[in-house]
Amino acid sequence: MDVAILGYGVVGSGTARLLEKISGDAALRALPLRLKYILDIRDFPGDPLERLVTHNFNAILGDPDVRVVAETMGGLHPAFEYVLACLRAGKSVVTSNKELVAAKGYALLQAARENNANFLFEGSVGGGIPIIRPLSQCLCANEIAEVAGILNGTTNFILTRMLGDAMPFGRALQMAQENGYAERDPSADIGGADACRKICILATLAFGRHVYPEQVRTEGIEGITPEDAAYADRLDCSIKLLARAKRLPDGRITACVAPMLVPREGSLLACVSDVNNAILIRGDAVGDVIFYGRGAGPEPTASAVVADILDCARHIDRRRHFEWEDGAPDYVAPAEDDIAKFYARVSCDDEPSARKQVLQAFPGASFIEIDGARPGDLAFVILPTKDGQMRAALAGLAGVKAEMVMRVAGF
Amino acid sequence: MDVAILGYGVVGSGTARLLEKISGDAALRALPLRLKYILDIRDFPGDPLERLVTHNFNAILGDPDVRVVAETMGGLHPAFEYVLACLRAGKSVVTSNKELVAAKGYALLQAARENNANFLFEGSVGGGIPIIRPLSQCLCANEIAEVAGILNGTTNFILTRMLGDAMPFGRALQMAQENGYAERDPSADIGGADACRKICILATLAFGRHVYPEQVRTEGIEGITPEDAAYADRLDCSIKLLARAKRLPDGRITACVAPMLVPREGSLLACVSDVNNAILIRGDAVGDVIFYGRGAGPEPTASAVVADILDCARHIDRRRHFEWEDGAPDYVAPAEDDIAKFYARVSCDDEPSARKQVLQAFPGASFIEIDGARPGDLAFVILPTKDGQMRAALAGLAGVKAEMVMRVAGF
Repeated sequence: MDVAILGYGVVGSGTARLLEKISGDAALRALPLRLKYILDIRDFPGDPLERLVTHNFNAILGDPDVRVVAETMGGLHPAFEYVLACLRAGKSVVTSNKELVAAKGYALLQAARENNANFLFEGSVGGGIPIIRPLSQCLCANEIAEVAGILNGTTNFILTRMLGDAMPFGRALQMAQENGYAERDPSADIGGADACRKICILATLAFGRHVYPEQVRTEGIEGITPEDAAYADRLDCSIKLLARAKRLPDGRITACVAPMLVPREGSLLACVSDVNNAILIRGDAVGDVIFYGRGAGPEPTASAVVADILDCARHIDRRRHFEWEDGAPDYVAPAEDDIAKFYARVSCDDEPSARKQVLQAFPGASFIEIDGARPGDLAFVILPTKDGQMRAALAGLAGVKAEMVMRVAGF
Repeated sequence: MDVAILGYGVVGSGTARLLEKISGDAALRALPLRLKYILDIRDFPGDPLERLVTHNFNAILGDPDVRVVAETMGGLHPAFEYVLACLRAGKSVVTSNKELVAAKGYALLQAARENNANFLFEGSVGGGIPIIRPLSQCLCANEIAEVAGILNGTTNFILTRMLGDAMPFGRALQMAQENGYAERDPSADIGGADACRKICILATLAFGRHVYPEQVRTEGIEGITPEDAAYADRLDCSIKLLARAKRLPDGRITACVAPMLVPREGSLLACVSDVNNAILIRGDAVGDVIFYGRGAGPEPTASAVVADILDCARHIDRRRHFEWEDGAPDYVAPAEDDIAKFYARVSCDDEPSARKQVLQAFPGASFIEIDGARPGDLAFVILPTKDGQMRAALAGLAGVKAEMVMRVAGF
């Protein structure tokens, strides 16, 4: 059975290397897989797999021996058109492309079903951490109440440096780039778009309806300062970029991506450091389960892509049971209606007046006192309240400017 | 399609309840599953499912409509005979019975293959934590170097109380029993036999060859005292009952179950408290991944058993790819040859002489000093050495009695 890889970048080349490596394994002898094509617009002179490189997608599409295609190009176009064409030709497709699955997963699964092919995407969330199969198969007897996680390794590395080593954001980002953990344009990581795509995929699987990235309020970590780190530490909390989705009693869901304060005591998520990811699933029968590991990098992601290739190859002409409904505009409740505990850091000229106003606007609010606080800086924790109301009340304080607002996450 | 449950105890009744609960789910409408029999030697007057209870195994075996059987009786006999008979009749079987899988897994998988049936056992390790499927499917492109974990919730609860609340062993055990976490006869938990069965199953799956419980050196937690807890704390370590199996370069493996000191810094396993379980898998491509959750209880285990039932029902007449070779007497290397760092606590009459002898026998050993140490008690850490040599040298010290020896686990 022949396999083609679309895109010979970091994940694509890792996938090719791993496929070549395991092809001699005893356990796979019954399953003769051959990597036949690598599609890329570039040439790779001197590469050990140079002979497989082609620029011609139609050669792959028209080759009936190619039964499984791995899409590792990234981006929406032409990945979507290529994947759709392959599925329509009855080829199974596996992908690590979260942008593609988050935006087009419903349409592509439909195409797979209509053409008796499989569309698998274990590598799209959490790198090599097994999460898609466990969620859709092992936990299928559960009603899932919540999915939450640290889904982006780059931002977790930066936050670990900022909190553990008291490094400012810019320096920590630079260090992430020097270590190869952040791309030259890190905006999709830093701004939360990458985590947003992943929580869309997890929420879609957990709750059975497609969630689109534009439905999920997404905040990044750019605004976090060393002061926030110090205040969080005083509360014995970590700051983590969390992606969360919860089922609401009315059948809708709530979903968001934002930096949050996570209590160190009693939450394993607070202990997840550096480029690691962790995903929590809360089911009615199983309780909380957490999946942890390196969330990115060529080898871990290739490990997931190759597992999907093997699954397709072993189940050729049989369909895996992945189904969900399409999304709907009102399916995700507005983030303004979310009720949460909040941390706020504000600046003001008249501190006594600001303190008085805060306590009036937010009964039960408690100030966080640290040594060496900047004059005019105030930080406090607000008891559970509606997101929108809290922001309006904060904006209404006279002579007080909100510098940073984060949820305090409870698990 | 009809389902039978063998054994209406804690897990069996949880499985029945969960099956009844989800049978109305929209997602399962395409898969009409009906619970038809519950086998037990007891009667359950007044139970909502009383009408399904039978004492007659042959009624189930002879009913061609029963295609999937869930074995939740526990124990080896008659579970083994019943499961084998069902498989030979072409029925798929799922089980949560770790004793059965660890002792008879190879024979039962063979019977499943010969009769085109499935034999699944997700619930046998880690309660509801997805681990069997992720290990065998999602990580199948990896060469696994090591499997390790906290596989027994009862002992982890006891150790959490002993270390966190300075409770002696007996009191912590009693508390576990009062909370329903420990059985009246807790010996299989406390002595490590339960964790041993589970590491056998994991090692078998990870390394491809059956590992039998009698091949794995197994130590329990009975000997741990509040002094050990204090010395461990001084080293910034937790004490965990760990089960570990590693691949050796010569094709054999090493495997053991024993309480170990786990450094709190940099290891998520040290943070796993109370009745929770965590399983670490180290793969060459994926790196370290950890699976975490409640390791026991009727609902979590039923969640895994029902997921296996659904998997069987959806793939009736198609076989899942679970294969491994039978074990061999010399496949597991003797624990005496394991090289590790060790913690030892000894008692002696002449402390200066004991200290001198320790340093002579174990060059580089470092003593652990705590406030309020018992007179004549000494604790120290021994640099990496062979298990057998270390024990022989320790036994050879004059006037020194080894009270407790534990490995210091590095991950």
